[in-house]
Amino acid sequence: MVDLVIVGTVAYDNIKTPFGSVADALGGSATHASFAASFFAKPGIVGVVGEDFNHVSEFESRNISTKGLQVAKGRTFRWSGYYEYDMHHAHTLETQLNVLESFKPELPGDYRNAESLFLANIDPELQLTVLEQMSPQLVLADTMNYWIEKKREQLLEVIKKTSVFLLNDGEARELFKTTNLITAGRKILQLGPGAVIIKKGEHGVLLFTDSTTFMLPGYPLENVRDPTGAGDSFAGALIGYLSQNSFSEDRLRKAIVYGSAVASFNVEDFGLNKLKRTSMHDIETRYKEFEAMVKF
Amino acid sequence: MVDLVIVGTVAYDNIKTPFGSVADALGGSATHASFAASFFAKPGIVGVVGEDFNHVSEFESRNISTKGLQVAKGRTFRWSGYYEYDMHHAHTLETQLNVLESFKPELPGDYRNAESLFLANIDPELQLTVLEQMSPQLVLADTMNYWIEKKREQLLEVIKKTSVFLLNDGEARELFKTTNLITAGRKILQLGPGAVIIKKGEHGVLLFTDSTTFMLPGYPLENVRDPTGAGDSFAGALIGYLSQNSFSEDRLRKAIVYGSAVASFNVEDFGLNKLKRTSMHDIETRYKEFEAMVKF
Repeated sequence: MVDLVIVGTVAYDNIKTPFGSVADALGGSATHASFAASFFAKPGIVGVVGEDFNHVSEFESRNISTKGLQVAKGRTFRWSGYYEYDMHHAHTLETQLNVLESFKPELPGDYRNAESLFLANIDPELQLTVLEQMSPQLVLADTMNYWIEKKREQLLEVIKKTSVFLLNDGEARELFKTTNLITAGRKILQLGPGAVIIKKGEHGVLLFTDSTTFMLPGYPLENVRDPTGAGDSFAGALIGYLSQNSFSEDRLRKAIVYGSAVASFNVEDFGLNKLKRTSMHDIETRYKEFEAMVKF
Repeated sequence: MVDLVIVGTVAYDNIKTPFGSVADALGGSATHASFAASFFAKPGIVGVVGEDFNHVSEFESRNISTKGLQVAKGRTFRWSGYYEYDMHHAHTLETQLNVLESFKPELPGDYRNAESLFLANIDPELQLTVLEQMSPQLVLADTMNYWIEKKREQLLEVIKKTSVFLLNDGEARELFKTTNLITAGRKILQLGPGAVIIKKGEHGVLLFTDSTTFMLPGYPLENVRDPTGAGDSFAGALIGYLSQNSFSEDRLRKAIVYGSAVASFNVEDFGLNKLKRTSMHDIETRYKEFEAMVKF
């Protein structure tokens, strides 16, 4: 019985940053999110991999259900990219959709009663088909600039159906063609979500609800080695925490701090290397550091 | 008897932003800083103006001593610039140094016993001559990229003699040729200051001491009309508050919040227009908003 469903990509990544590189590293939005969520909850992932995929045991060793992971004929989705010293921007070298091209999410029976859902970054049309298969109390959704440009209408449909919508600062500005994040946040809230979270990378996170604003600065990291999956691990930890607690704005603020703590570990090494070495005690310690650093 | 000395420029500014423009507006680093400080303390300014200057009464009406304001033959320093939608970057059209060219700061007798000093952005050689004329307990200093490039050695001398050094993120990166603000902050602390404050514009403020880090997000403003003087009003309010309280890290954190609150008003209208309409009650209200917005 999974308490949280995470839908997104499972990938093999080739990543180069000024601090090193990895080839064929396990990655993808559903992967980073489910690893992060597994500190708090029992997630089940929905996604697709190819016949070349040999990392199922990595999920199972973290108690992540892979019953919703389809194995399709062909190769697993692959992303190759690099970062320069400004780690806020990923430069894509190659995207091989492979099995992702004909992916149709299908939820196993026991996923359909889960109360929490994270729609990680995939085609908004696929996000909508997931929403037809279940009625969770809490829906968190993410996106990327590509979908804002190519499938804006479908994306707006997704936003209307989310409890909490998540996007980064550049995407928020692009979605409503405004330079101001507060204006963008307000316009998203008008579509229906109870809350919108805008991720600003190293500059932290903004949360808007109809009546309040919450701001969390970024954790001050001196050694960022690979930012890939930062946003997904943030979201995964956030919904992992929320799935175990009754929803309130206070809980949402705490979830943002846990998300930021987990994401700050995620970027300290390539791929999932650092998350695999991180303990719940490490996360609690970083949570307390956040408390001490914003207090006045 | 002034309790706080502020050394810097007094200027007439021509400013254009996407939201309007002003000509010959009273400005300059010492002006914005002393207006902001006057909410908390009785500052005295040290600077120079030309024979065309007719705004002395504006300072006096705010209880800012102008005894240290020299009147020299010639015209007042003038700056012309504009901002595009990215208000983080000022574009300079023209700088007329005028009387500033031969300025030598000279402190009136009763300024020399003040316990607090703010060396706003001017030539570090002039900042050093001020430090020869008084021995305040608390020295806050600011700078700009121009001096980092042209007078690095003299600037490092100034930094060694400050209690709290202040600069923006771009300057911090440039000073020690690093992309990482934590690395930059640590290198500045090694020169001697007890604290370094890095201003990140809309992204807020970082404070580093030898043992702790404090982070305050930027106040979420929907209507920034003119960012000129944001950093100076931040610094002025900060040292204004500190000059009235015994120094501690806790006080420094609170001073950063007051500085951010006053700066957030400063940018809501052109020049000093908004600060003139702002009350201490408005500032306290915004301070409380900060408290509510960072709480988790």
